[in-house]
Amino acid sequence: MSGMDLKYTELHDDQFGITMRVKNVLYSGKSEFQKIDILDTEFFGRVLLLDGLVMTTEKDEIFYHEMIAHIPMISHPAPKDILVIGGGDGGTIREVLRHPSVKRAVLCEIDGEVIEVSKKFLPQLASALDDPRVDIQVRDGIEYIAQSKNEFDIILIDSTDPMGPGEGLFTEEFYKNVNAALKDGGIMVCQSESPFADQKEIKMMQPLLKKAFPIVKTYAGPMPTYPGGYWSWTFCSNTVTPLEFVDETRADEIAKGSKLYNKDLHRAVFALPNFVKELVGE
Amino acid sequence: MSGMDLKYTELHDDQFGITMRVKNVLYSGKSEFQKIDILDTEFFGRVLLLDGLVMTTEKDEIFYHEMIAHIPMISHPAPKDILVIGGGDGGTIREVLRHPSVKRAVLCEIDGEVIEVSKKFLPQLASALDDPRVDIQVRDGIEYIAQSKNEFDIILIDSTDPMGPGEGLFTEEFYKNVNAALKDGGIMVCQSESPFADQKEIKMMQPLLKKAFPIVKTYAGPMPTYPGGYWSWTFCSNTVTPLEFVDETRADEIAKGSKLYNKDLHRAVFALPNFVKELVGE
Repeated sequence: MSGMDLKYTELHDDQFGITMRVKNVLYSGKSEFQKIDILDTEFFGRVLLLDGLVMTTEKDEIFYHEMIAHIPMISHPAPKDILVIGGGDGGTIREVLRHPSVKRAVLCEIDGEVIEVSKKFLPQLASALDDPRVDIQVRDGIEYIAQSKNEFDIILIDSTDPMGPGEGLFTEEFYKNVNAALKDGGIMVCQSESPFADQKEIKMMQPLLKKAFPIVKTYAGPMPTYPGGYWSWTFCSNTVTPLEFVDETRADEIAKGSKLYNKDLHRAVFALPNFVKELVGE
Repeated sequence: MSGMDLKYTELHDDQFGITMRVKNVLYSGKSEFQKIDILDTEFFGRVLLLDGLVMTTEKDEIFYHEMIAHIPMISHPAPKDILVIGGGDGGTIREVLRHPSVKRAVLCEIDGEVIEVSKKFLPQLASALDDPRVDIQVRDGIEYIAQSKNEFDIILIDSTDPMGPGEGLFTEEFYKNVNAALKDGGIMVCQSESPFADQKEIKMMQPLLKKAFPIVKTYAGPMPTYPGGYWSWTFCSNTVTPLEFVDETRADEIAKGSKLYNKDLHRAVFALPNFVKELVGE
């Protein structure tokens, strides 16, 4: 396909978004739930699209995966049982498994084809899924969480946006079931959309989280290929206040192999711009 | 022009960039130095392009201007004499003037047409240029700084990229002249490119800054319409170490009218991801 002037553009709310030059389309398919594409690009390496939206790229996936995983993992003294809902590309599980206390990491992904395509085309992310500590459950996260009680130290909601297959992961009932699935001292972190581009979604989501958890605190950081280049995650718990406990020794260990994470950054990501504080109701 | 499917795409290094839907082109011209365009968009409001690159938009200009101005201004106990080099749109001067100690704010912009076009099309940014404390110098910043000695409390280098008209603002000689133009206790902050998209430029720039200043510290934050959505600025001084002094009272006053700035964020922006620390040689 050389010589072809191929570009991919994702328009957010049909107004703006990222354009990337594309070398080749490596895969295009449609699962029971969504359209799945893998692009090969010069700058970003391989790119996973779900329903035409950039989910992850080899170049910048680490910005997202370190932030969703290490902030809660290092806020827990010894996380053993972990659940990731969504995240079929494997990147979040890969970061979770870097913590030596982990005994079991359940990946509950509704779309088995996302896992298969990621294993084939995105080994940098998905190779961790072969780790013996990983338990892959190809099923609906809503149902899975409803039958889990007092089972997990950390639950990570690595979902798509609140539309399509991910829609049911943004409800008060779901968040309450997540709470019930946490052990004492447990922490849930969910991706919570772009403070620049998804303000409506954030205003919808935050009150629901606050109905389900007494402690709800959003953090934010750069995420180049997501709308606005700026993303947020929200830390929720019954008992754990962010930054009251940071496992300094493990933070330094994890920082050694991380592209972004270090303990100063861990503290800094909770300092939000005024407009984000207002959005999340702080 | 309704019904026309008009979009603007800026490709960084011909690989990736932002696409925005455009309602109308309000102005297109060519000055002695560069091409100047003003687009009208639904999402970003009006957009200033120089040589086809997005310089500022009504929607997200504040992300950049608060960061370049308030971090150094609040690190100085009473900044009176301020110099902005570049920044012909007026946004940096506008933020500088919010500090009541300011007596004189010099805007040294090489391209008078940028100022005129901004006054006409971007009043949200440029209206501050009518303030009686502002001294507009339409001339080359390199020459202006070479004849200024011991004159400014704060110098802000609000330049374009290190190519085209801004090229001479990225040299050791220029930085040394900036140093000589600072009063005792003075601070220079320059925009220092995208840690995600401009790694080559950052590696070029940082050693030059370190030859001119004993204290050089980069900070970073979101900037949605710039490449990667993630931008950096660098704080340089002979005597002032960032965060050793933060004027808490003024920080709280400035925070009240700011979209992003608050004193927690002021401290947080200096906590860099590992890959940025490595890039800047920390």
